[in-house]
Amino acid sequence: MNLSAVVHNAASWLRGAQDECGIVVSCRARLARNLTTAPFAPKATDADRARVMDQVLEAARRSVHLGAASFLAVESLGENERLVLVERHLISPALAEATGPRGVVFNRDESLSVMINEEDHVRLQAVLPGMQVAAAWRRADELDDDLGRSLDYAHHRRWGYLTACPTNVGTGLRVSVLIHLPALVLSDDMERVVRGLTHLSCSVRGLYGEGTNALGNLFQLSNQVTLGRSEEELVEDLTRIARHLIACERDAQERLMKEAGWQVEDKVWRAYGLLCNARVLSTQEFMGLLSALRLGYTLRLIDSVPSGFMNQLMIVTQPGHLQAESNRKLGPEERDVRRASLVRQRLRELPRNPSNAAAG
Amino acid sequence: MNLSAVVHNAASWLRGAQDECGIVVSCRARLARNLTTAPFAPKATDADRARVMDQVLEAARRSVHLGAASFLAVESLGENERLVLVERHLISPALAEATGPRGVVFNRDESLSVMINEEDHVRLQAVLPGMQVAAAWRRADELDDDLGRSLDYAHHRRWGYLTACPTNVGTGLRVSVLIHLPALVLSDDMERVVRGLTHLSCSVRGLYGEGTNALGNLFQLSNQVTLGRSEEELVEDLTRIARHLIACERDAQERLMKEAGWQVEDKVWRAYGLLCNARVLSTQEFMGLLSALRLGYTLRLIDSVPSGFMNQLMIVTQPGHLQAESNRKLGPEERDVRRASLVRQRLRELPRNPSNAAAG
Repeated sequence: MNLSAVVHNAASWLRGAQDECGIVVSCRARLARNLTTAPFAPKATDADRARVMDQVLEAARRSVHLGAASFLAVESLGENERLVLVERHLISPALAEATGPRGVVFNRDESLSVMINEEDHVRLQAVLPGMQVAAAWRRADELDDDLGRSLDYAHHRRWGYLTACPTNVGTGLRVSVLIHLPALVLSDDMERVVRGLTHLSCSVRGLYGEGTNALGNLFQLSNQVTLGRSEEELVEDLTRIARHLIACERDAQERLMKEAGWQVEDKVWRAYGLLCNARVLSTQEFMGLLSALRLGYTLRLIDSVPSGFMNQLMIVTQPGHLQAESNRKLGPEERDVRRASLVRQRLRELPRNPSNAAAG
Repeated sequence: MNLSAVVHNAASWLRGAQDECGIVVSCRARLARNLTTAPFAPKATDADRARVMDQVLEAARRSVHLGAASFLAVESLGENERLVLVERHLISPALAEATGPRGVVFNRDESLSVMINEEDHVRLQAVLPGMQVAAAWRRADELDDDLGRSLDYAHHRRWGYLTACPTNVGTGLRVSVLIHLPALVLSDDMERVVRGLTHLSCSVRGLYGEGTNALGNLFQLSNQVTLGRSEEELVEDLTRIARHLIACERDAQERLMKEAGWQVEDKVWRAYGLLCNARVLSTQEFMGLLSALRLGYTLRLIDSVPSGFMNQLMIVTQPGHLQAESNRKLGPEERDVRRASLVRQRLRELPRNPSNAAAG
């Protein structure tokens, strides 16, 4: 498996399909599973882990839904290669930093993946672009069925699937939506909204950073409870809450445009101008500018930069990807220069925007 | 005389010729003269002023060097029309705000003009683009000779030309250079430089605003003494000092590039990106961005925006010009929106910059 192919791959979940005009980036269904044939991760030896690995890989090979898949043994990867996988959400930071035999299997478009020997023996996930929680759950369920035919899952008649951490016991299911909420943040409504959601057993966290300081105003909405409700109920609950959040954000955007339309338009186009021209861009500034641009896309103020393009840009501008592209480790300043250069180059490749030829 | 023709005219002194790579905008020679046939301005009645006006206009009509010229009676102009003339440096704010018969005569390319009944009966000036102090003085001298053939100037054998304010007595000559000093300001060297120049009987003032807070880092360098030295000496002194200032600025720019080249390049291109895309631009921000762009031109970091273009832009984005263009009075917010729109439009009309197609 050549990792440089991964670096240049455009994962399908970043395509921006059915994304509520850019408000929803993607959605994800993750299932935690463990085998009866080995001790759970906290007590497993490397020999146990190797055995788990063999069994899961064999099951993955037989999976119809996974299809032609790649396997990467994380322990044999270099530091930056692991970072690239984390940035692509193919592995968790925990799996990157763990020790012993561990790995990840993923299909060509990165919509299905299986982490082996993370906190649980098996963490399988399905990721889809835009607002498709039920579809993501269905795909995870199909993959789970495939693997379950070959693997003996640890399951309790009363408690359901058993997991290393009790918070995952039951369905082992976490569904989540990656959602962009700039107007709620700008209008200081985010905290009130988050408080409301906690009552609904949902959590909202910044994709990077917490609360209202979330980088790029991107939030991950996910269920907190895995036990006592069926998978279908969890999916329905999260879908309903996500749709509510989207409506709140749209309301806030509408108010913003009524109260300060010129300022919003100005902010959007300035972000575009800076992204097209800056020579140095920190991650923080880049994510802020991208958020303004995404808001412009949602409000139809700017139509030359599709949401899928922005999603992709968010991935390839991260340190691991920049370093993979440059074939060497980069200092923070070098990364900021490379990031700016990459962003300019990608934006140049977009078809020109007729509404603003001077900067299209 | 139709003032809208003036609004759309491109004054030749903004062309940016011989401008030391954009460091020098223009230079100017101004002569103060008074007639023996009427009391000086502080004691003149409206009847006196009317007589002065007639005599000067008759002299101007006969001037070979002035050629086909326009006359505007300032007292018959509306508020915004006077503002437009001030913004074009055809009249002083003092002449705009005075009362009684007063006016201005100027030739087609606005390189020669004569204010009538300002602080002195006659204030004539020659303005040229770039670093041409001696040439500006020669043109003012020729016009002065033309007018002097018809007018009886107040002149004292010992003191020279007599003026309303003693600071102008003698030659009545003020020569000045409009100069862009961003690196000296940025490196906090401006104050030291200004102190040095005061010893040399020169003054450096912000074009708008004083000292290091000068809007757009534009400074007016001019002689303080008009008495006891010949016109040629004054011109030579100012030229020498201006060349010294230009050399200091170039040194400071070189140091800046050595110490923070990426940051400078970033600043220049961000300014360009914002000017091409912003929807709201205050005068202050606009002048700051234009200064960064001009620095980029001087350093050859950006070559798609000629200095003459920037000089023109500086004039047409001022409130009077924006209001003349819109045919009505505009509030400050409306002006900022109109300014941004005009800047975008003008930049769009420039030939594209091959080095940055994404924003050319």
